[in-house]
Amino acid sequence: MTGSSFRPSRRSQVPPFQVMDILGRVAELRAEGHDLVSLCAGEPGGGAPTPVNERAAAVHGAGGALNYTPVLGVQGLREAIAGHYRGWYGFDDSGAGVRAEHVAVTTGSSGAFVAAFLAAFDVGDRVAVARPGYAAYRNILTALGCDVVEVDAGAETGFQLTGAMLDRAVEEHGELAGVVVASPNNPTGTMITAENLRELTDWTSARGVRLVSDEIYHGITYTGDGRGHSAWEFGRDAIVISSFSKYWGMPGWRVGWMLMPDDLAPAVNALSGSVSLCPPAAAQYAAIEAFSPEAYAECDAQVQEFARTRSLMLEHQGSLGWTDAAPADGAFYFYARIPQDMLDRFGSSGAYCRALLEEAHVALTPGDDFDTARGNEYVRISFAAGYDAVAAGIERIIAFQK
Amino acid sequence: MTGSSFRPSRRSQVPPFQVMDILGRVAELRAEGHDLVSLCAGEPGGGAPTPVNERAAAVHGAGGALNYTPVLGVQGLREAIAGHYRGWYGFDDSGAGVRAEHVAVTTGSSGAFVAAFLAAFDVGDRVAVARPGYAAYRNILTALGCDVVEVDAGAETGFQLTGAMLDRAVEEHGELAGVVVASPNNPTGTMITAENLRELTDWTSARGVRLVSDEIYHGITYTGDGRGHSAWEFGRDAIVISSFSKYWGMPGWRVGWMLMPDDLAPAVNALSGSVSLCPPAAAQYAAIEAFSPEAYAECDAQVQEFARTRSLMLEHQGSLGWTDAAPADGAFYFYARIPQDMLDRFGSSGAYCRALLEEAHVALTPGDDFDTARGNEYVRISFAAGYDAVAAGIERIIAFQK
Repeated sequence: MTGSSFRPSRRSQVPPFQVMDILGRVAELRAEGHDLVSLCAGEPGGGAPTPVNERAAAVHGAGGALNYTPVLGVQGLREAIAGHYRGWYGFDDSGAGVRAEHVAVTTGSSGAFVAAFLAAFDVGDRVAVARPGYAAYRNILTALGCDVVEVDAGAETGFQLTGAMLDRAVEEHGELAGVVVASPNNPTGTMITAENLRELTDWTSARGVRLVSDEIYHGITYTGDGRGHSAWEFGRDAIVISSFSKYWGMPGWRVGWMLMPDDLAPAVNALSGSVSLCPPAAAQYAAIEAFSPEAYAECDAQVQEFARTRSLMLEHQGSLGWTDAAPADGAFYFYARIPQDMLDRFGSSGAYCRALLEEAHVALTPGDDFDTARGNEYVRISFAAGYDAVAAGIERIIAFQK
Repeated sequence: MTGSSFRPSRRSQVPPFQVMDILGRVAELRAEGHDLVSLCAGEPGGGAPTPVNERAAAVHGAGGALNYTPVLGVQGLREAIAGHYRGWYGFDDSGAGVRAEHVAVTTGSSGAFVAAFLAAFDVGDRVAVARPGYAAYRNILTALGCDVVEVDAGAETGFQLTGAMLDRAVEEHGELAGVVVASPNNPTGTMITAENLRELTDWTSARGVRLVSDEIYHGITYTGDGRGHSAWEFGRDAIVISSFSKYWGMPGWRVGWMLMPDDLAPAVNALSGSVSLCPPAAAQYAAIEAFSPEAYAECDAQVQEFARTRSLMLEHQGSLGWTDAAPADGAFYFYARIPQDMLDRFGSSGAYCRALLEEAHVALTPGDDFDTARGNEYVRISFAAGYDAVAAGIERIIAFQK
């Protein structure tokens, strides 16, 4: 008698993050020799800045031992990240500024979300997220035993939450322990205004509700309105999360960070020591070079390239027949409803994406990853893969839809 | 009014993993120019095998984009790890063997524990661990809302659990959902016998209790009795966890793995897509080289070096005045009670370790990390740092204790 009663946990029954399954299938098809156009993942095609690559190659080339680093990251990187906030956001390094001890280096922003949610929220705590939004917030919170309150946010508020929407959520569901916001948003690309963000920091601070601000796409913006607003411009109660994966083009390196409110820092440290031990060592040493003038210049050139690809995408919106597109003011996503005849033919954007992948070898992400209510009519195209890939993808999609 | 009611979560109130705090202090003291002898962390001093370093340097030197990999790791590494089980454990690659689809590559063994515990256990589930044992089991389980049942395991069973001990634990605490075992064990170095491991796989399988077998120190053994027994020798219900951190000397690389029972694989995949996205990419490509004959030869030579250092340690046990030492049959730890006069002087091994670090610049780990009951009289010395470091450490400790 072995294992007849074995079953996975109830909390592991989160919907699989479809984009990761699609990436797995992309890898398989490529291994079979197919020419794939992968527009599904938020993966900048340009790679890390040159000084970062050089430093990583040198660290490994030296062949020394790569030991565990301090739990919250090597001091040099924590200082460099704090310096970045002084440079981009004008924070000084004293008083209300950002200092190394506010920074926790994490294993990607994923590691930051796990540590932040564990440190801030208990089992049964209610946390609000915007719908549509990044699926991992919902999945991680659910796995950790939190109660996710999905709040519909539409085009009229730039797909962002407002105080009034949170008031209604509390009325309907009860007191909140936390709220997650993201700007530029994934999948819509929309950006939160300073007024909106100040309203949310005020609303949450006044109620002892923890705001978690996902700022991973900061720096990738197209409206000439700056790098993106940080929640720490308006107070110190929020957890700010970011990463080297997007602006710096380093998704596979798995290095991100969190700005920790003072009251949470000991908890983040204690938890992370057990949950992750430390972020990858060589990547941390290399990431220090991400803040050199040369690295910033390379990344800004990459953003210019994203802008060119974005224009191509917007130009072809009509010929693709996609509608209800969100304004892609930042990040590198275009989120839209697929044509009605495609919905009629395939039944859902998920089935449409699977057929597109198998038949036309173009990988998109179905909207279900971002919106449990209406996502099955939407797709997200990531234009991070670059101009040529997007041009090829558009051509194949148009042919596929004929 | 801002944040007066903010507080960390209750579940984040795990004891900080002391060894990580000590490592942080070691880094600070070194930055101040002090000559530290760090014998606290399980960090092999020799570094990764040459082919692994060369591959990592080449990957970074090429400067291409390092994208997200499939959630459960790149196929080549999953295959290489499966091959390792055929080589070391004699599993074939069909039927009851180990194949690539059984392997989930993870962000260190830490990532494997988080994914395994989430996939297997729900909030409120009862999980038994041996005391003394690795603190992170307890801390991660607690953070994830599980109920940890600490079962005292002493020298008479090689500090390992038995079926009779688990029967008593069930009688006292109620039904278990899981049991964690580790061999070679941290901190005691003791190894589980084939009979003991078979008894535990039978006991857990018969009851639908999930066994989690930590095999991270396999390959680092001194008794001539093999590489260590795997739970998969006796069935397929257990989760097996391992890593490149120890035998391969790659702690800072953050790459480990898990062997997944078939019924858990979809849950591990779905959860990991959100919780971690993927393990570090470059480290995965490089780790494929860890299974070359040259790499195995370098690692085995390193184990010979650990054996030499272990002999030095055992020789000086008397002059250190440490007692009740566990037999260090595997891993690279020596766990013993500090002299009574030191306990009288400092009150606890924690205070002793802090004084030793500040005054003699030798870092050890206090036993509290491993044993919430009697650990405050014990210390763990890691001899992974190498012969010279241990020789210097012994000299300083003897002088300090005078």
